[in-house]
Amino acid sequence: MKIISSKDREFKKTLDQVCRRGSQQNAKIEGRVKQILQAVERGGDAAVCRYVKQFDGLRLTPRGIKVRREEIVHAYKYLSISERNSLRFAAKRIRSFHERQRTKTWVHTDKGVKLGQMITPLDVVGLYVPGGKALYPSTVLMNAIPAKVAGVGRVIMCTPTTSGEIHPYLLAAADIAGVDEIYRIGGVQAVGAMAYGTRTIPKTDKIVGPGNMYVAAAKRVVYGTVDIDMIAGPSELLVVADETANPLHCAADLLCEAEHDEEARVYLVTTSLRVAKAVVREVAKQLPKLSRKQIATHSVRQYAIAFVTSTMEQAFDVANAIAAEHLELLVKRPLEAVKKVRHAGAIFVGPHTPPAVADYVAGPNHVLPTGGSARFFSALSLDDFVKKTNIVMYNQKQLKEVQAHVTCLAGMEGLQAHARSIESRSE
Amino acid sequence: MKIISSKDREFKKTLDQVCRRGSQQNAKIEGRVKQILQAVERGGDAAVCRYVKQFDGLRLTPRGIKVRREEIVHAYKYLSISERNSLRFAAKRIRSFHERQRTKTWVHTDKGVKLGQMITPLDVVGLYVPGGKALYPSTVLMNAIPAKVAGVGRVIMCTPTTSGEIHPYLLAAADIAGVDEIYRIGGVQAVGAMAYGTRTIPKTDKIVGPGNMYVAAAKRVVYGTVDIDMIAGPSELLVVADETANPLHCAADLLCEAEHDEEARVYLVTTSLRVAKAVVREVAKQLPKLSRKQIATHSVRQYAIAFVTSTMEQAFDVANAIAAEHLELLVKRPLEAVKKVRHAGAIFVGPHTPPAVADYVAGPNHVLPTGGSARFFSALSLDDFVKKTNIVMYNQKQLKEVQAHVTCLAGMEGLQAHARSIESRSE
Repeated sequence: MKIISSKDREFKKTLDQVCRRGSQQNAKIEGRVKQILQAVERGGDAAVCRYVKQFDGLRLTPRGIKVRREEIVHAYKYLSISERNSLRFAAKRIRSFHERQRTKTWVHTDKGVKLGQMITPLDVVGLYVPGGKALYPSTVLMNAIPAKVAGVGRVIMCTPTTSGEIHPYLLAAADIAGVDEIYRIGGVQAVGAMAYGTRTIPKTDKIVGPGNMYVAAAKRVVYGTVDIDMIAGPSELLVVADETANPLHCAADLLCEAEHDEEARVYLVTTSLRVAKAVVREVAKQLPKLSRKQIATHSVRQYAIAFVTSTMEQAFDVANAIAAEHLELLVKRPLEAVKKVRHAGAIFVGPHTPPAVADYVAGPNHVLPTGGSARFFSALSLDDFVKKTNIVMYNQKQLKEVQAHVTCLAGMEGLQAHARSIESRSE
Repeated sequence: MKIISSKDREFKKTLDQVCRRGSQQNAKIEGRVKQILQAVERGGDAAVCRYVKQFDGLRLTPRGIKVRREEIVHAYKYLSISERNSLRFAAKRIRSFHERQRTKTWVHTDKGVKLGQMITPLDVVGLYVPGGKALYPSTVLMNAIPAKVAGVGRVIMCTPTTSGEIHPYLLAAADIAGVDEIYRIGGVQAVGAMAYGTRTIPKTDKIVGPGNMYVAAAKRVVYGTVDIDMIAGPSELLVVADETANPLHCAADLLCEAEHDEEARVYLVTTSLRVAKAVVREVAKQLPKLSRKQIATHSVRQYAIAFVTSTMEQAFDVANAIAAEHLELLVKRPLEAVKKVRHAGAIFVGPHTPPAVADYVAGPNHVLPTGGSARFFSALSLDDFVKKTNIVMYNQKQLKEVQAHVTCLAGMEGLQAHARSIESRSE
């Protein structure tokens, strides 16, 4: 983890480089991804099963795609009581936070004209859950619960397996979250199945959830045919610290993000050179003790930077320029400092809010914009699972009152039939 | 315009075909689009000017890209007083509707834990306005006003010209809407400039506005680097009518949509064969009188269908399956019928609400999801120009209370540093 001070010549260049990170597209794989999607669109279940065999080495018939109720019931037996309780506790907290995001249909009447906005949940949502060694039941909760709170009728989940068996943690989390159907397929073929529908798998309206670069590319291709959540990149944490920050906490939180992924990005921005040095020492000290030290070490060596600024103002300029997924404020009067943040996926305020608490049980969503996209994307929320429909209702009198304006504007745009459609009302 | 009854054998097949319309991607042009975008990312203003010369035949230096204040002032002189007034009237109504969409930052405290959601406007928004013969100042208002109401600091606009002069209607509309800067460039090069930034044109956070298939393809490619509004397709209107509907109004409204675009889709869904026949006759009668009869005739001949259903229930099943951009309800008790709508971009209720009134002056946004994407996309709104950041603040006591759950869940996911980051707080 290197330290760079705002007095150093390379400060600006380093910051610019960090700001230019971002979600990279992989043009090379796109052709292959489109081929698979097309084959699934045309071939349905049979094509899906063919690719599952090819990529996961799993022999599957269309009838075997869907996970049976008994498998889910059986999964619970694998969990300890405290594991079950903790999943349920997290689910309850997530549900409670997202309930507060509910927006309501409204209609406003002014001089007999009714204008409004109707909120309707999506019909069908598909959740992609990656396979492999990384196993995140918490992400199942974070994606599926807001959909169910929003009122989505049918939430389905796809996840790949090589053995045909989905890990009990994922099955239990899905069941606790209220997922309606689970399918043991993954990869591009699962995205295709959820975008176009097959005999077994329903066509969805939106696909959410993380995935490898093939899954990400597939989601980008089907965007428009269905909605997608966002283009997700590696995890990020930026800690803003002043001289009051405890270097031990800083280091522990940075490592907590770094252990996620070799590509994870962690940054410290501080006004205190002393704190910066202490954090770097602490990181070096804690790293070798971690079970995932190889991953965390790669992330720290490759990307971790401690920016030392001369003022707090400058520290927030750096934080806003980077627009990190997770932003932690270890400063005096941290709640006031929130007002200085313009761009971040989520903000963790003060010494008692390690990001890990929000990863699991605080309640706000942990699906957050990465790669600087916090400038324009938001945390996953209830809004992702509803749509808004405008409502307009005029009466005869008010229509007459605006007729001249409509005629004039339609004239400017050369759209005569527009004017006529209003005139036809007074004939 | 053909009539098809639910008793006909092809009813379901025809409906399925309509439902399968949707935003088509054009793979052929994508390669070329990526080339131009890359050249603009690398070459900045010089590359932009080179493409402007190549595609618009306009010689432009970087200093000439930005429209000068005098040009805008001058533009107003071209407008009649009623044109100016009508634009201002529309702007006022649009502003007033979108004010009602404002969502507020909230923080909720429970047992000392603060959880909330902070709303921040985007910093910079880019509005693309197509050139060519179609000239839509109303669309400038509909895109720019919500951005300004949301509090976006800098709204810029790009539009192509062949002569170097932007039409006064567009300049006046942009000024009335509060657009901060206007650039006389268009096409893929304009999208690239707004996505990556050049010396003259700021990097934006989101690009909105319609465009031809090159512009649409470019927006799809830069999605992720910036946000985009939606993948827009041709206009659509679906009228649900019972035996009380006036065929004259139905026909006038269908033609109003059809005159937009040769590819526009208009549908009538009615329980009354008599109404269907009368509408078809009316359409044939009104068509030849339109100034844009060629465009409207193409749209009607190619796509217009009158679906005759046996029940109102079935009529709404058809409407929901098609999920049209514009949905008009010409039925008894139309406000009650709104509840039967699950998927539509906007709903026009009752006999005195021709869609044209909402195209211009009602206030709700006329930028709406097309091609069936009303199943998951929404009308352009204030939400498009803000982002939400989660806020989490624990205290020592509450952190201790949830520690066991975090440790348990982190253990399930094999993320030891996550657990340690919380333990570090109690050391």
